[in-house]
Amino acid sequence: MEDFSLSCPIPIQEYPNVLLAHGGGGKLMHHLIEKMFLPAFGSSNSIPHDSTVLNIHPGKIAFTTDSYVINPLFFPGGDIGSLAIHGTVNDLAMSGARPLYLSVGFILEEGLPMETLWRVVRSMQQAASEAKVKIVTGDTKVVDRGKGDGIFINTAGVGIVEHDRAIAPGSVKPGDIILLNGDLGRHGIAIMALREGLEFETTIESDSAPLASLVLELIEAGIEIHCLRDLTRGGLASALNEIASSAGVRVEIDENKIPVREDVRGACEILGFDPLYVANEGRLVAFVRENAAQKALEIMRSRDRFACQIGSVTEVSSNNIGLVTMQSTIGASRIVDLLSGEQLPRIC
Amino acid sequence: MEDFSLSCPIPIQEYPNVLLAHGGGGKLMHHLIEKMFLPAFGSSNSIPHDSTVLNIHPGKIAFTTDSYVINPLFFPGGDIGSLAIHGTVNDLAMSGARPLYLSVGFILEEGLPMETLWRVVRSMQQAASEAKVKIVTGDTKVVDRGKGDGIFINTAGVGIVEHDRAIAPGSVKPGDIILLNGDLGRHGIAIMALREGLEFETTIESDSAPLASLVLELIEAGIEIHCLRDLTRGGLASALNEIASSAGVRVEIDENKIPVREDVRGACEILGFDPLYVANEGRLVAFVRENAAQKALEIMRSRDRFACQIGSVTEVSSNNIGLVTMQSTIGASRIVDLLSGEQLPRIC
Repeated sequence: MEDFSLSCPIPIQEYPNVLLAHGGGGKLMHHLIEKMFLPAFGSSNSIPHDSTVLNIHPGKIAFTTDSYVINPLFFPGGDIGSLAIHGTVNDLAMSGARPLYLSVGFILEEGLPMETLWRVVRSMQQAASEAKVKIVTGDTKVVDRGKGDGIFINTAGVGIVEHDRAIAPGSVKPGDIILLNGDLGRHGIAIMALREGLEFETTIESDSAPLASLVLELIEAGIEIHCLRDLTRGGLASALNEIASSAGVRVEIDENKIPVREDVRGACEILGFDPLYVANEGRLVAFVRENAAQKALEIMRSRDRFACQIGSVTEVSSNNIGLVTMQSTIGASRIVDLLSGEQLPRIC
Repeated sequence: MEDFSLSCPIPIQEYPNVLLAHGGGGKLMHHLIEKMFLPAFGSSNSIPHDSTVLNIHPGKIAFTTDSYVINPLFFPGGDIGSLAIHGTVNDLAMSGARPLYLSVGFILEEGLPMETLWRVVRSMQQAASEAKVKIVTGDTKVVDRGKGDGIFINTAGVGIVEHDRAIAPGSVKPGDIILLNGDLGRHGIAIMALREGLEFETTIESDSAPLASLVLELIEAGIEIHCLRDLTRGGLASALNEIASSAGVRVEIDENKIPVREDVRGACEILGFDPLYVANEGRLVAFVRENAAQKALEIMRSRDRFACQIGSVTEVSSNNIGLVTMQSTIGASRIVDLLSGEQLPRIC
């Protein structure tokens, strides 16, 4: 594993920790931006300025933001840095947009080891490169010790929409097939296992991954996609509830079809979680027109063999608009509702 | 003054404080978004979705982000909410862009009074309306008690650039005139006076204000603007140093010309601050071509009678590239450098 103390572009002997002055607008902040952020994010030739001017082709852009407060900062399969890239790239992709540009806002706690910051920055750099997005503008604030928690990151993203489809809940129709691109629950369980000190035979790794190339491949293949949603906080159950409610339709899924790894299922039982509500960071549901479902599923399966059809959209009557129901493994049907409380705090 | 406990759209008897579950992706988060954020930000008819799709005219966009961690949250002349709107609107304006759309990312501390959140949201709504920008997408995270500090806000912004000028340090040339749009130091001193419990005969109010309409008026009047910079963290001194260094020019200013109110000057002396380094939130410097300076100054003065010419850009020799010098009130010339340490932590 890389020794980040050796590669850190800020001399660690001199500045082992982040100081309040690293966010103060003076020499130390400029030093941090010029030595660490600009070279890492590939902007070493650009002049830092209040905002960045970008050339955009005529048409529609997608715009989104998310803050990341995950605890712990590093976990099997990822860290807060890669997560902050994947999460915002995925939110853009869910509108069917091609992600292009990200902003990064750091809120650092005074005393954060400089090496930790560098490790996160390097991870962001790699994740951005893999997801083919550029980090073009940023901001750094430092809060006093005990008023933050290491690192919080906000990323906002801009993408371009290169098609005329309205990929949104309003386009969902009865008859649509619901596809899931892989197994559920690994991100949330990886975090919780770490927090609770649980050990399994194999390490459960987060599924954190960028989803834009899958979405663009589906669009380029001419799949009639009606809606996309990534399954983050609140998991599959919340995503389906939001879409069913927004679209005014009824959704039926089949528990037998939903792929959950045995170790994840076991951990869920130990921790008292339902995998339907556990957060994922590389999973989406696609609502597609029935006659396009087979082709879409083949594209998904070429990337993940656990991709599958989990349900469909059905006609509504006055008393079941927005309802999500699930055929259970024993054949009964139950309502899958939004969660009332908090299942997994600070999971993203 | 408005009683925010009465107008708060979340019933305060039931939810007097923000809970972790308000950021958890379940019912409480949806309740907060649907009852408070969407109506306040004028999106009550829109369907919440991962990202927002916007129609943009062909051409160039400006993109920026800032996080706001100011302490205390409320201060004379503003609060963290209006500041989070003004700051990002101003960063877009500094590229000569017309600000259009903002994202908002909240990081709330568990236990935050719901009424406080509502007061901030209302302030953001008003500031966005005054600055003619729309809040189109957002995110809410809640961190456990003691891991945050009430409210942190990130805003990112998108604007359109409707002209062909490159308003950036690279366009600055020897001979350019440097204009300042008003008196210095009120934002930083308003905050520090509050923190230190200082009282003056009159309350010093923050200068926090949106600057886009001034910038657009200058552009529409045909002023040849070479560079703009708002004078936030690090104040006038840091802004001039950054620009002189990026542009590879020398900057000379005249201390006699720089407007600082008497009460602000007195507070600076008590607190040991130099007004040149104190943060402002409604002040900018404009580097304009010499023959446009008079007209530009008239436009600035029609908005603030303290607007003035503070200096100019001069030819460089090999040993003074990037240097900022100031003629002092007693006639001596001194170098105005970047500050090494932290003058005012958490001022924005």
